[in-house]
Amino acid sequence: MNSVPPIADVDLRRATLCQLLHWLAAGRVHSEALAEVYLDAIERINPQLNAYVGVSPTLLREQARTAEHRRRDGVIGRLDGIPIALKDNFDIAGWPTRAGLPGPGRPAEHDAHIVGRLRASGAVLIGKTNMDEGALGAVTNNPHVGPTHNPHRHGYTAGGSSGGAAAAVAAGLAVAAIGSDSLGSIRIPASYCGVFALKPTQGEISVRGMIPAARMLDTVGLLARSVNDLTVLLQVLAGYDADDPRSRRRRVALAPPDWEPGKLRCGVLSNLPGLGVQPAVVDVFEATLAKLDRELGQRRTVDFEDWHFARARRAGLLLMEAEMLGTFATQLADAEHPVSPRFRQMLDYAASKTAADYATADRVLDAAALKMRRLFAQIDVLVTPTTPQGAFPLDGPVPDSQADLTSFANLAGCPAVSIPMGTLPDGLPIGLQLVGARGSDLRLLELAEVWSATLDAAPDYPVLVG
Amino acid sequence: MNSVPPIADVDLRRATLCQLLHWLAAGRVHSEALAEVYLDAIERINPQLNAYVGVSPTLLREQARTAEHRRRDGVIGRLDGIPIALKDNFDIAGWPTRAGLPGPGRPAEHDAHIVGRLRASGAVLIGKTNMDEGALGAVTNNPHVGPTHNPHRHGYTAGGSSGGAAAAVAAGLAVAAIGSDSLGSIRIPASYCGVFALKPTQGEISVRGMIPAARMLDTVGLLARSVNDLTVLLQVLAGYDADDPRSRRRRVALAPPDWEPGKLRCGVLSNLPGLGVQPAVVDVFEATLAKLDRELGQRRTVDFEDWHFARARRAGLLLMEAEMLGTFATQLADAEHPVSPRFRQMLDYAASKTAADYATADRVLDAAALKMRRLFAQIDVLVTPTTPQGAFPLDGPVPDSQADLTSFANLAGCPAVSIPMGTLPDGLPIGLQLVGARGSDLRLLELAEVWSATLDAAPDYPVLVG
Repeated sequence: MNSVPPIADVDLRRATLCQLLHWLAAGRVHSEALAEVYLDAIERINPQLNAYVGVSPTLLREQARTAEHRRRDGVIGRLDGIPIALKDNFDIAGWPTRAGLPGPGRPAEHDAHIVGRLRASGAVLIGKTNMDEGALGAVTNNPHVGPTHNPHRHGYTAGGSSGGAAAAVAAGLAVAAIGSDSLGSIRIPASYCGVFALKPTQGEISVRGMIPAARMLDTVGLLARSVNDLTVLLQVLAGYDADDPRSRRRRVALAPPDWEPGKLRCGVLSNLPGLGVQPAVVDVFEATLAKLDRELGQRRTVDFEDWHFARARRAGLLLMEAEMLGTFATQLADAEHPVSPRFRQMLDYAASKTAADYATADRVLDAAALKMRRLFAQIDVLVTPTTPQGAFPLDGPVPDSQADLTSFANLAGCPAVSIPMGTLPDGLPIGLQLVGARGSDLRLLELAEVWSATLDAAPDYPVLVG
Repeated sequence: MNSVPPIADVDLRRATLCQLLHWLAAGRVHSEALAEVYLDAIERINPQLNAYVGVSPTLLREQARTAEHRRRDGVIGRLDGIPIALKDNFDIAGWPTRAGLPGPGRPAEHDAHIVGRLRASGAVLIGKTNMDEGALGAVTNNPHVGPTHNPHRHGYTAGGSSGGAAAAVAAGLAVAAIGSDSLGSIRIPASYCGVFALKPTQGEISVRGMIPAARMLDTVGLLARSVNDLTVLLQVLAGYDADDPRSRRRRVALAPPDWEPGKLRCGVLSNLPGLGVQPAVVDVFEATLAKLDRELGQRRTVDFEDWHFARARRAGLLLMEAEMLGTFATQLADAEHPVSPRFRQMLDYAASKTAADYATADRVLDAAALKMRRLFAQIDVLVTPTTPQGAFPLDGPVPDSQADLTSFANLAGCPAVSIPMGTLPDGLPIGLQLVGARGSDLRLLELAEVWSATLDAAPDYPVLVG
């Protein structure tokens, strides 16, 4: 047809979702060929990385072929032919949903709501990604299927609980991935792996067919290689689902908002060392703020007290663990496939807590919601590092502050975006978090897009050469 | 000014709020005179009825005098000069809020949100009304200040927990009253006392400054002598409050909806005897449906399983009791003013429950919300008796089914209206409940108004002659 040279495999794995959509539309790549590039990379790289826990080449090729036919017929969806990964706590009909627990699992009867949306958009589902056991953790050092390694450094954590999903996107083994975020589970691995993430407003994307962690905090999370990719995914997945009790009719129109950069009221979290943020992270954060000086508009200092975060983390964990005692009752009773001692111990802790303790934790959610409401009456966006630290060795100690900067958005139901903001002295990436008022998802994404351009933020692909 | 004879005291106590607003506007009665009529009636009747636990004649007269001045100046509020009662779980600055518990209580620092709204509208606050201890009950047989008697029959319950408020309205000791409803606490006494009640959509009226029962279920409830009175009160009290974490921006405009009676899809709860509704109540309900035949539009039978109600009741009670362990921690520890053995026993029961039990109860809320969402995709309004039984003797056994027909609306966050539907063979009143989808408050009120006219429903005033 034309003499433009084909696109190199490595570029197909490095491209953003939006770039691939252009190439597919222009016929410069076909969905079947694209699927083969990703399958080949997964076969070569996943044995070391352990990002995927389940991939079906047959099903993947079948989807890609069908996408090819649709394109020939001229009837294509918004994501037609794009290979996408799913965290293993979403149901795909006919596949087991293990959620990081042991045992063979039972095949799911129905697709999760988002899986139906992805299929309807023509996306090609690659497979299921690794995660912390029961999503209860932020390391993805799974005791049953082994850890996911950070694509930037073998032997280091990819973060969690959506660690496999973030590693797959960073390593060029998926164009984008869908994870979940109840206290920070997509933003933490996005920060450690150097990719982009959105935790939307609570209720914006249906969680039907997702294994619940804590229903009051659960959101579907998006991982991708650019802010625009997140926006496209949000457009495809967001919307009211009458069968999800916590799905909410959108209060804010899903259209880009108007805003004047000079008038932006930007809250910047201060007293970071006092909150336990590592000095190296503070340095990168300060340097990032300096680069964004003009974009931050009217900058305002926001002081959070330490106890806000500590209380939020404890309250959120209690809600999760108490609920998991019911969610995973079958698995906890299965002597043939025992859960890990750590998982059982965490749930035993919850079993020792009373209904009154739960009610008290639930009040912390109310306090967080009020605090954020009052804050967002004063500012348009709150800016923080995404995590207090970068990735750490899988065989070292696990800091208990991992979710301290992310969990507050879940307790208050607010949207949050994480973009790469730079590299720590040890050469590993670290993320910048933008948090907004409920329903401000698109404003946040628009800000994140402008800031990403200023920072020239983009994921790098350490293992693509491997 | 004119030769129209003054209005008899008994008519001032029997009139609806809307009627009194007309008379006040026409100068046929003045707010100070109106206040004296109510004060006089309270002094005579309350010692037997025990509807009020606190009235300040001085403050009441002062408010009425101020209202008089405003009217002379021509600057009046929507409820100017109207005497209104408040359940004793709302804060009035300077008054103790006892919520039915023992001890002198501490004076509240601030007015509850609704008290501020009432003051701004010019309403005259009469005083605080009797309730079940901690709002945990539906009998208003308070162990510390004694029972409220049903105005229709001394020695019978007025229902609860807003029993004092409903009795005051029924007995002509308040034009309207504000109570609370977490499982049915305004609708049950409205049913037993033969008055009108609205439990609005969750989050529609701010609960700030109300002692919480279970924040997930709590609503401010309205008691009055006509449907139109409820509508006026809702217009004054509803609206977003940034300081109430569960206050919601209105999703449905607060304007009367259009509907065609012939197209109305009306769900009628069937299998009532199987749900434990007394035969005499079923008879009155059937007779009511026959009278409303034309108004019911396209009638559809709705089958609820018994367990829905039983589970809902148990789940709701657990949420309340667990939360009260925190809310009333000070009172529970006060040896000088001990709570009743029954109250302590109920909270001890909750203290034996685990966080996982609470999480399970919370799932029942999700199930209820989904059930109602699906139901209201099929119908516009669900019609039931308000209570499975009428008022019963205060010295007899207390049925545990009292809230079985009302609690579901709280779990699902739906609005519900109760109107008098007739008289049981023992001569006591019984209510008809209309339940609608979240946000359909005004549609429900409009339907209730039409149906009230057809039924010629109006409270009667048994003690006005006394």
